[in-house]
Amino acid sequence: MSDRKPLILVTNDDGITASGIRTLVELMQQLGTVVVVAPNSPQSGMGHAITISSPLRLYPSEIFDDVIAYECSGTPADCVKLAKHHVLKDKAPDLVVSGINHGSNTSISVLYSGTMSAAIEAALEGIPAIGFSLNDFTRQADFSHTHDHILTIARQVLERGMPKGTALNVNFPARAAEPIQGIRICRQANAKWQEVFDERRDPHGRRYFWLAGEFVNFDTQAEDTDEYAIAQNYTSIVPCQYDLTAYGLLDELKDWKM
Amino acid sequence: MSDRKPLILVTNDDGITASGIRTLVELMQQLGTVVVVAPNSPQSGMGHAITISSPLRLYPSEIFDDVIAYECSGTPADCVKLAKHHVLKDKAPDLVVSGINHGSNTSISVLYSGTMSAAIEAALEGIPAIGFSLNDFTRQADFSHTHDHILTIARQVLERGMPKGTALNVNFPARAAEPIQGIRICRQANAKWQEVFDERRDPHGRRYFWLAGEFVNFDTQAEDTDEYAIAQNYTSIVPCQYDLTAYGLLDELKDWKM
Repeated sequence: MSDRKPLILVTNDDGITASGIRTLVELMQQLGTVVVVAPNSPQSGMGHAITISSPLRLYPSEIFDDVIAYECSGTPADCVKLAKHHVLKDKAPDLVVSGINHGSNTSISVLYSGTMSAAIEAALEGIPAIGFSLNDFTRQADFSHTHDHILTIARQVLERGMPKGTALNVNFPARAAEPIQGIRICRQANAKWQEVFDERRDPHGRRYFWLAGEFVNFDTQAEDTDEYAIAQNYTSIVPCQYDLTAYGLLDELKDWKM
Repeated sequence: MSDRKPLILVTNDDGITASGIRTLVELMQQLGTVVVVAPNSPQSGMGHAITISSPLRLYPSEIFDDVIAYECSGTPADCVKLAKHHVLKDKAPDLVVSGINHGSNTSISVLYSGTMSAAIEAALEGIPAIGFSLNDFTRQADFSHTHDHILTIARQVLERGMPKGTALNVNFPARAAEPIQGIRICRQANAKWQEVFDERRDPHGRRYFWLAGEFVNFDTQAEDTDEYAIAQNYTSIVPCQYDLTAYGLLDELKDWKM
């Protein structure tokens, strides 16, 4: 870390009023100058959505003391784009942190996660980035047991940087009687959401559906996954990248009759 | 391909009225029994978004002759989930095809692409899936030069299946004077969108922003990318997977002071 105070951009997907982002802002103020650009409403499940067919709004917010903050009508990925290109006038922050998400983003949830899409958007810009999520989706989630790990991980990233095109997906177990056991470097567990659609009728008799579902872990025997780590009361770190190419298939496909 | 007629689910992200999906439906009718579940409005840029905070609507549509079709209020990923779990009553289709998108989804656009999120959602369910996109975003785009390749690729996938957890990202060059030169198996080009925000004032004097930007290809020297292929008037196929773990970093991270 240089002597200059690092510039840290904070965003999230639960919206600027969530308690998770307040915790993150307060912690990052210990490490550098904080700027916040966060959605003005919850954006959970937005994946890597961006807003291209409607205009974006950006308003100054005084929700945090002594912090330059804006609320944005867009998605978490929009927030990072607007922060870099407009709020910060193309001055790249030293670190982008997203979260703390109310709810875990382990395993396949990384695909649907607005929290991680903000971190990956930063990685696309070559900015070191971390998404933090807690395995507790309540509004009243207790984040106090995560403070030390957040500071440790953020300090390491500020000091070492991240290889270009990568970002960290950090997940914490929900607060338990025992303190978190430690930090584990993990791979994304192989799992999926087994959807159930809850079919109902509105007061006008028209049918509608709620998306619900259960998490199904196909990796229950493995001990190197993020799912395993948080189940064992560890903090999990998965380094993520955004090249989706299935390299192992390239040769096989070249043999197809096409 | 077995003697039984394959069941093919068709979706897209431009909405059920787009001409790209009509082309795809008509082509798939040559290969099997087609069911359509597609968004009732354009969903471009939705990435892997899912709808969890508002209810989903699903209405029968008679837009296609002799095809069971539904329009859905959700995202492309929602459409695949609703199709599998509700419309098809958990009977897995033999193939999911998404598109033909009006606009290419090469390189990093795969992250923002609703077209590909539908294909990846299907892959998560273990269903062979293909996203088709044309490098022409106009509503009047001419898809006629893509028909042969669509049928060839879909037939190969129906015959061979796809390895679990993978889907194909197929991009076609815009119609040119010469026919498409052939099909290339590619990797995702390393590129990004260089955003520009177009700042305006609404009639009430309030500021708003349009997201715009230019595509920047960092891979201009490489000949094995999807970008290169379509620039050379080839159809590109990138096999995609959804494990974002940056495996090459796992050992390095274990040496961090944490």
